[in-house]
Amino acid sequence: MYKFEHVRHKPPTELKVERLLIVACSPLRSHVNLSTIFRTAGCCGVREIIATGNAKLIGKIARDGAEHVRLTTKNSLIPVLKKLKQEDYTLVGLEQTTNSTQLSRYCFPKKTVIVVGSEREGLSQECLDLLHAVVEIPVWGLPYSYNVATATSMAMYEYCRQHPAG
Amino acid sequence: MYKFEHVRHKPPTELKVERLLIVACSPLRSHVNLSTIFRTAGCCGVREIIATGNAKLIGKIARDGAEHVRLTTKNSLIPVLKKLKQEDYTLVGLEQTTNSTQLSRYCFPKKTVIVVGSEREGLSQECLDLLHAVVEIPVWGLPYSYNVATATSMAMYEYCRQHPAG
Repeated sequence: MYKFEHVRHKPPTELKVERLLIVACSPLRSHVNLSTIFRTAGCCGVREIIATGNAKLIGKIARDGAEHVRLTTKNSLIPVLKKLKQEDYTLVGLEQTTNSTQLSRYCFPKKTVIVVGSEREGLSQECLDLLHAVVEIPVWGLPYSYNVATATSMAMYEYCRQHPAG
Repeated sequence: MYKFEHVRHKPPTELKVERLLIVACSPLRSHVNLSTIFRTAGCCGVREIIATGNAKLIGKIARDGAEHVRLTTKNSLIPVLKKLKQEDYTLVGLEQTTNSTQLSRYCFPKKTVIVVGSEREGLSQECLDLLHAVVEIPVWGLPYSYNVATATSMAMYEYCRQHPAG
């Protein structure tokens, strides 16, 4: 008898209600980053990702996330964020800004849009102006900034930690 | 006056004591995955990563993590894990197994080694047999398994959430 033994094909955790979490991405230069976000989103039971710019998925990286998470592509995030705001979504940016809240201290409302910036420029001021809150992941050492897919995955993890049943 | 404004070069969070967290990786096929783990480790203030197999860092991905996190390469994880166990490190595997604990419910001791499996095979039974605990990140949807660098980053995030000052 082994204490710890691999369990392949363990049933996933059940969502009692649909996840009302959307991830909205500024134009990402790297298809690897977008695809990595899709794989994590698939695992987290996220239903929709809004992408801008040249949004292309690499199937080998996104895996089933490519089929199970809806990809909505837009020319700009601004109109869709305004629309989601009217639909009572809370818009939460992931960025290092003034008046930001530490990710783990922020209580995510169920209806949340995590708004993600571009690799280099982050979120535009126009986007920042629409947000209800900005969350920030602490850094303790160089390079002082997380990869965008890593940071987005940590934010999804934190949301799911707070809302395990959806 | 903007409510949220970019803050570049914000000072990092201060560690009161050195992080006693080590990440130990089974042979990883992908240098991208190892390099991604290094970037996150650098940001989290992790001092050492033990890698096995053909461990090579891609500077563009690992960034300053490549210089600021010590890379120790070994032929096998078993002897080094046994040594760390003798030095009172708690060995915590990241895997889907019997008797695993949900990542967010596990209280990490400060002196922890997060033991990471290979992309396809995960942790070997020989490794599993040495562990004090196994943590598992819940999944809610397909592909039912996180990318290894994503999962390791989530585990580092959770450790740091519990030990913000080191």
